[in-house]
Amino acid sequence: MAGPIDFYFDFSSPYAYFAASRIEQLAVDNGRLVQWHPVLLGVVFRTVGTAALTSYPLKGEYSFHDFERTARFHGIPYNRPPRFPLPTQVAARAMLWTAEHVGEARAIELAQALFRAMFVDGVAIDEEKEVIKVGAALGLDPDALAAGQDSAPVRERLRAETQDALARGVFGAPFMIVDGESFWGFDRFNQLDAFLKGALQRTGE
Amino acid sequence: MAGPIDFYFDFSSPYAYFAASRIEQLAVDNGRLVQWHPVLLGVVFRTVGTAALTSYPLKGEYSFHDFERTARFHGIPYNRPPRFPLPTQVAARAMLWTAEHVGEARAIELAQALFRAMFVDGVAIDEEKEVIKVGAALGLDPDALAAGQDSAPVRERLRAETQDALARGVFGAPFMIVDGESFWGFDRFNQLDAFLKGALQRTGE
Repeated sequence: MAGPIDFYFDFSSPYAYFAASRIEQLAVDNGRLVQWHPVLLGVVFRTVGTAALTSYPLKGEYSFHDFERTARFHGIPYNRPPRFPLPTQVAARAMLWTAEHVGEARAIELAQALFRAMFVDGVAIDEEKEVIKVGAALGLDPDALAAGQDSAPVRERLRAETQDALARGVFGAPFMIVDGESFWGFDRFNQLDAFLKGALQRTGE
Repeated sequence: MAGPIDFYFDFSSPYAYFAASRIEQLAVDNGRLVQWHPVLLGVVFRTVGTAALTSYPLKGEYSFHDFERTARFHGIPYNRPPRFPLPTQVAARAMLWTAEHVGEARAIELAQALFRAMFVDGVAIDEEKEVIKVGAALGLDPDALAAGQDSAPVRERLRAETQDALARGVFGAPFMIVDGESFWGFDRFNQLDAFLKGALQRTGE
């Protein structure tokens, strides 16, 4: 099987949520696997000199409108979260701990459940107890998940994932890299799909 | 006929060029007219607190890549301009003068020719003589165009267009407003088309 799609995201990005809800199907359709990489967009934004979309005048108001309309356009459930954006360290670390100690497939289930909690059910996933509750509903051990997400190696792993993303040119989310080709944004899924099907060549070819 | 599509753009935006090459067909397909509004993105960016895409680390390199790949994906001719971005006051004023003194249809022809000069032929359209040359090739009077683009009323008109755009929430380009609904980016043409066909409702309906 050809190389995986590296999928970089932050749990606080609505466009990353849309991408997360569709990327496994896109990968299956093209005979690929997905490597999920939770990162901290706040760190990325500080490095690049940008900020959350919704923090800018005019652009902020439009963005909330676009999240909602884009969800409807693609038929993805979405409700504007009561608080947004949120810190996502706990959610990201819970996923990383699950991937290492329970398995990649359960970690992806957890990620998708956390995204739905945030963008459908209005859950404040910056709170540890809410993240643990989402994990417990999937059958993960609440005490192990709570201790694990707070452990030094998992904290270090999240820092490393974020630095590795920056080193690979990731400046926003969702961000996909496959066969050395980079795609930023859910609205590049059409180009990503065409690239994987051989219908869109790499730049310079 | 239903209301027009207000189309806001800056001659230095590649995504606005892509939009300009397709928007008349999209409008015809949906029984609409297009009102072309050249604006100065530099002024808009200063107001919003953003900057040209290509001015950010990481995002800048990706953007040049994305311009080229997006053009190929949509089958639009594109060559990376030798200098980019460029000041576009002269090009914008030439279009506004032509719209008022020659006619809207010729002004749209001029706009499309200026975009092609910039993004296909590598012409530095910040230079007055180059803008005049593009106009002359379309049969516009070079002396009248040169004097007209530099006149006080046309300068004032461009300022007013840019302020009007900001007042309507325009924070980037291309930006389309129709029936009170706003769309930012060439990658929202699919949602714009669905909206005009009645397949995508207004937010809150």
